Amino acid sequence: MLKEIKIQTQSHSQLIDITRHVSAAVAESGAASGTCYIFVPHTTAGVTINENADPSVVTDILKETAKIVPWEDNYKHMEGNSAAHIKASMMGFSQIVLIESSRLVLGTWQGIYFCEFDGPRNRKVLIKIMEDK
Amino acid sequence: MLKEIKIQTQSHSQLIDITRHVSAAVAESGAASGTCYIFVPHTTAGVTINENADPSVVTDILKETAKIVPWEDNYKHMEGNSAAHIKASMMGFSQIVLIESSRLVLGTWQGIYFCEFDGPRNRKVLIKIMEDK
Amino acid sequence: MLKEIKIQTQSHSQLIDITRHVSAAVAESGAASGTCYIFVPHTTAGVTINENADPSVVTDILKETAKIVPWEDNYKHMEGNSAAHIKASMMGFSQIVLIESSRLVLGTWQGIYFCEFDGPRNRKVLIKIMEDK
Repeated sequence: MLKEIKIQTQSHSQLIDITRHVSAAVAESGAASGTCYIFVPHTTAGVTINENADPSVVTDILKETAKIVPWEDNYKHMEGNSAAHIKASMMGFSQIVLIESSRLVLGTWQGIYFCEFDGPRNRKVLIKIMEDK
Repeated sequence: MLKEIKIQTQSHSQLIDITRHVSAAVAESGAASGTCYIFVPHTTAGVTINENADPSVVTDILKETAKIVPWEDNYKHMEGNSAAHIKASMMGFSQIVLIESSRLVLGTWQGIYFCEFDGPRNRKVLIKIMEDK
Repeated sequence: MLKEIKIQTQSHSQLIDITRHVSAAVAESGAASGTCYIFVPHTTAGVTINENADPSVVTDILKETAKIVPWEDNYKHMEGNSAAHIKASMMGFSQIVLIESSRLVLGTWQGIYFCEFDGPRNRKVLIKIMEDK
């Protein structure tokens, strides 16, 4: 099953917890066990997994990645958003999560986060469920 | 087949070669060809692939990532381990390795490494084997 | 279906668009829908996804990652290419792309890039197509 979800990001750099959307896709698929792929079809946004408890973790990830990859750094790309392209490649464009007993197999503190690095924009995430034979 | 392995890390930052555990899971599954997913259900540890020959490579990876993401950097997260969260997202929480002729398809110098960034701790790794139809 | 493609890189650090090779493998497989894994069996080269329109994006990615992970930095690894090992782990050794209607599901601006960080060398990329049941 392939499902597309739409995300309207609100700020320039933002990590948005999309776990509930992914869980809903798993439930909708009816898959008892299998694999779930989360794919971001953009080049200035990515997807990662990280802590879902203290929102300061997300704040720190955004602040520190902005320091590692500064927004202004004599980039050649005229659009001016090269830092977003680089951060997206660093986080990655897909995540794999396993499915067991009809649920996502995530660690206690894990959430799945859409990573906006050049917003606000209208974005999409593709979720594919592969049920085991 | 889904298998869980337990890892007791020994130091604060450490890359542990888990290739033999993954190979054992492939052998146990009996899969002739397929795909192997390695998933880390934590938020301050990840998994990567890198050189299995000279242990200095692992040392350099740990030292350089600690320089790129300093442990102290005015982070907001009170637990004080934001750097570990960021490094885990940079390395990633899963790896995919192909299976052919009942064996992992790895390059000559490739090993699969569990990445501890906030140890020592008791950790888990999930290994899922999907056999081709 | 598992396919191996050979790549001769031309310079020390280089991102090479391999999308057409991956698309050709999908066409060759005849898969209508499924999943495509792209795996790099090296430790100083990786694979990522990024913009396929303005070549300046690739230039900026290479320049900025070389700044984040300097080539010389008192590394212990005698071969002298630790920066390449670290950058490969940061970009990743595999990418997953979905297949629908017998085509790769990529965003408008997405291309798949082989990442050479210690060339020029003869390299390989493995492409595996899994068709849905």
